Amino acid sequence: MLLGSIEAGGTKFVCAVGDGDFRIKTQTVIPTTTPAETLAATIAFFKQFDLDAIGIASFGPIEIRQHAKDYGYITKTPKPGWSQTDFVGPIKQALGCPVAWTTDVNGSAYGEYVMAGLTNAQLNSLVYYTIGTGVGAGTVINGQFLGSLGHPEMGHVPVKRHPDDRDFAGICPFHHDCLEGLVAGPTFDARVGRPGRDVPLNDPVWDIMSYYVAQAAVQTTLTIRPDKIIFGGGVVSEGFLQKVRRDFDMLLNDYVSVPSLEDYLTMPLMANNGSATLGDFALAAKELNRQ
Amino acid sequence: MLLGSIEAGGTKFVCAVGDGDFRIKTQTVIPTTTPAETLAATIAFFKQFDLDAIGIASFGPIEIRQHAKDYGYITKTPKPGWSQTDFVGPIKQALGCPVAWTTDVNGSAYGEYVMAGLTNAQLNSLVYYTIGTGVGAGTVINGQFLGSLGHPEMGHVPVKRHPDDRDFAGICPFHHDCLEGLVAGPTFDARVGRPGRDVPLNDPVWDIMSYYVAQAAVQTTLTIRPDKIIFGGGVVSEGFLQKVRRDFDMLLNDYVSVPSLEDYLTMPLMANNGSATLGDFALAAKELNRQ
Repeated sequence: MLLGSIEAGGTKFVCAVGDGDFRIKTQTVIPTTTPAETLAATIAFFKQFDLDAIGIASFGPIEIRQHAKDYGYITKTPKPGWSQTDFVGPIKQALGCPVAWTTDVNGSAYGEYVMAGLTNAQLNSLVYYTIGTGVGAGTVINGQFLGSLGHPEMGHVPVKRHPDDRDFAGICPFHHDCLEGLVAGPTFDARVGRPGRDVPLNDPVWDIMSYYVAQAAVQTTLTIRPDKIIFGGGVVSEGFLQKVRRDFDMLLNDYVSVPSLEDYLTMPLMANNGSATLGDFALAAKELNRQ
Repeated sequence: MLLGSIEAGGTKFVCAVGDGDFRIKTQTVIPTTTPAETLAATIAFFKQFDLDAIGIASFGPIEIRQHAKDYGYITKTPKPGWSQTDFVGPIKQALGCPVAWTTDVNGSAYGEYVMAGLTNAQLNSLVYYTIGTGVGAGTVINGQFLGSLGHPEMGHVPVKRHPDDRDFAGICPFHHDCLEGLVAGPTFDARVGRPGRDVPLNDPVWDIMSYYVAQAAVQTTLTIRPDKIIFGGGVVSEGFLQKVRRDFDMLLNDYVSVPSLEDYLTMPLMANNGSATLGDFALAAKELNRQ
């Protein structure tokens, strides 16, 4: 069996081919330019193989409701040139195999769910946040994604202000001081004039960041009661998560029981967003079995 | 077929017997005093009938994980005398029939889900908030409740402050200014010195209230993407919901598409919390079929 994976991001498409055991056999990276150019290069790569199914985890927003007219499209994205781009249609037509279609964060969430299933049979649900250029999250519950009207946009929830951060306007063009507007990577440039990678963890701005990320984890905990919450993306490190756990503990105030925070609020099991490729393979195999 | 329903609240137990079409045949109200007294009266009422199954929707927090040692218990509740009370055990032993067990808000959510299914086949998921003495919510997705580690406690999520409400401390003993701490019924006494029923809708305090409830709806929308969000409880009226819709629209800023707000953010289909009894009957029937 041969499975394909497209991790479609705003700067690059990571394309991979794997076998039925989800092992990567070959992989390539295609820069995200125009839809026509990028999709043509993607198709040319996969045309070399006789795929049985392919999984796509895409930047968005995207249309995931199967009955919608524009199912399989990237919809009204801020990424120039990509609004209303049919993604699934051309791939399906060119490759002639079943296509699984979901968001980038759902793909990563699913990969972590598969990995966790191999190591911990008790894990039935998880939430995967990515905190990088943008903020988003995907939720898997018993193998299903959360989202009935469409995919979640958990990066844009309101949060309460840190007392030392009242004057920061936030950078979200839609909501100003939503979670993404307060903790996405570019907030470092906006708050302290340099990128986050140049800001040491003992700088107080990291305590402001952790206060908001902890609130997101509290909201998720009280709303979904998942078995685990995973944080990936460029902003996240184990040192930062230690601050998040501290603030989470203070904010939740032991109101509901959760596992030990070292097990509950974690980095991804797979480094370098490897969970996305694994998730895509697993979703492709699932789609194949469904058809 | 005879089905039982216990809507177990902090001040009263509403007990009902219905048939296989979920019609109420008889109903009684038992005051919530001590566990021994209240459970004995409840059992005595239902002993008159030969029930096939019973559904219980209880105040909490409660243990709903089937594998837990204290499954079926009310756990560490603030209600005096009721902490660590085995509820399902005595009922099951006395009545000898299958028992469905969930939270009060889940019971109401399920009743609204059943009702909606009878009137709108497109509705696959909903969230039911109650805003009264306390604040809580239940979520049904394709007939299943959300909550893996335990039941949600969506009343205690953090929200951002209304600019005109910065000096109010909030009344939640656990989190001070969480959603419940800012919008539960008793906040009216704390903010304006009289109960909410005596405060006209044009009082600015209602705009403060709606700002927070709208944030809860935004969080839920972006996290769960449900088909509908329903608001019940003593604080809610259609006039109040109009303010909530206005603030929701402003806060969401059209970021994801939702149905028309008159259809999306609504009062319960069933008045006087009738959804709880219907939900209990339906959950009882489901439990019977499962066994």
